Order: sequence, then C-alpha cells, then structure tokens
Amino acid sequence: MPDFMTLALEEAAAAAARGEVPVGAVLVNSKGEILAQNGNRTEEWADPTAHAEVLAIRAGAARRGSPRLPDCDLYVTLEPCAMCAAAISLARLRRVVFGAYDPKGGGIEHGGRFFQQPTCHHAPEVIGGVEETKAAALLKAFFKEKR
Amino acid sequence: MPDFMTLALEEAAAAAARGEVPVGAVLVNSKGEILAQNGNRTEEWADPTAHAEVLAIRAGAARRGSPRLPDCDLYVTLEPCAMCAAAISLARLRRVVFGAYDPKGGGIEHGGRFFQQPTCHHAPEVIGGVEETKAAALLKAFFKEKR
Repeated sequence: MPDFMTLALEEAAAAAARGEVPVGAVLVNSKGEILAQNGNRTEEWADPTAHAEVLAIRAGAARRGSPRLPDCDLYVTLEPCAMCAAAISLARLRRVVFGAYDPKGGGIEHGGRFFQQPTCHHAPEVIGGVEETKAAALLKAFFKEKR
Repeated sequence: MPDFMTLALEEAAAAAARGEVPVGAVLVNSKGEILAQNGNRTEEWADPTAHAEVLAIRAGAARRGSPRLPDCDLYVTLEPCAMCAAAISLARLRRVVFGAYDPKGGGIEHGGRFFQQPTCHHAPEVIGGVEETKAAALLKAFFKEKR
C-alpha cells in the first residue's frame, strides 16, 4: 500500500511541476499490478474532468475493455471530489485509498458524501489519511507559490 | 430552448440504438451556437465516465482550449448524476436545462444535491422538467426491452 501511495505522490509532484493542482492517482488490480497512473491535467488538456482519478479510471477501463473494474483499487493523494467519487462508484472500484482530507472540495467525507447517498449504487471500501502529511505539504507549497 | 432539447432527445434515441442508456446532451454558447453534442457511450468506449454530459463538456472545452466555459449552457435529457453535476460545476457552465427528473440516480434535485453543498464552488442556473415526458418515454422503452 505505501508503495502505491508513494507513486501517487510522485504523480502529484509531477502535476505541480506542470502548473496543475498537485493530485496524483494510481489504479491497481487485485494482484497488485498497476493498470494506470496519472496526475491532474485539467489545464494542460483544457478538460475540466481531467482529474487524476478520472484519468486513471478511464485509462484502466480502456486497457481492460470494460467500464467496470470491480477488482481494482485506486490510490489518490487527495480526497476525491464529488465528480471523482461518483466516477469511482460508476467504475465499481473495490477500494479507494486517499491521502489528505479535503474539507473544501472533498466528496467522500465532505459535501454530499456520495457513497452514503441512496443514489449511489456501489460504494467502495474507503481508507483515508494515508500519507496525509506528504500529500497536504505538496498542496500547501503549490498554493503558497500561486499567491 | 425547445430546439436544443429536441437535438438532445435525438442524441438519446441514437444512444438507445447503440445499446446505451438513452441520455443525450447538447452544449450551447450564449449566442446559441452548438459547441458539442453527444449521447452516452459508456459501453461502446469502455469508459464509465462517458456520460453524454461529460462528453459534451470535454468536447466543448477542447474546442475552446479552456477547461472553463462560463458562457455555456448544457441541455440534457435526464437529470445529471453526481459525477455530471460536479463536472458541470467544474466547467463553470452558466445554465443546465434537463428533461426527466431522476430520483434513482440524479445529483441535482436528488442524492447529494451537489449544487447546494458548501464544497460546490460554482452553481449554474438549473431548469428541470423540460420535455420530461419524451425523455422519460425513451428511458422507459429502453429498460422495458432490456428486461
């Protein structure tokens, strides 16, 4: 588990270097094989949906040839937003492991808490706060520089 | 407005013909020019995020070269889900006009009601129920055939 989060943190750092909000994600199957990994690319690709989680899920699903990945886990450095939480549910992921909690934009432990809604038809296992300090430090440095 | 919803309904019917859940969307700028239109393609493209709304937003943003489309309106035949509602907010759309209400999967008037959450940083104007009967009839026919 720590190895995948370390990779996700490297994707987040690479995103920051590209001028993107530093969030990274790694999609892993039940054998521990990496299917996809990416960082935020919303500005680079002019795509408001190009969050790290969505890019990893889309790439993994394309590789599998199926929109459903029920044996897969997603490691992501920040609590997914409402869009990404719902995408995780639609992809039927088994588990989501995230780093820093996001009171301002998170959609799992904050806001609409999608996985707890009756309109959510698949809720993955959730593990939050893994390597939280490192993920938060990346974000803090990024936004400090922006100001 | 009715013309764009008619186009969205045609996209929904085309989606049904491809074996997809029949939802269609049309993205329009403030001059009434169509930037993008599409229907659901989650199965065809093996992409759980390939909802009509996301595809229209992604195509419109790519065409503009910007992840933000603050002058644009989205016409969609069904109440957007949580993922699509959040994508609409992230894209900073001006307005969303939808057809049928979706108590089982909707994310605007149902479930987490994303636009009403403190974690939502841009809420568009919302007009629901436009051509609701036609949109609902398409969905009903599709799911009746599937059973």
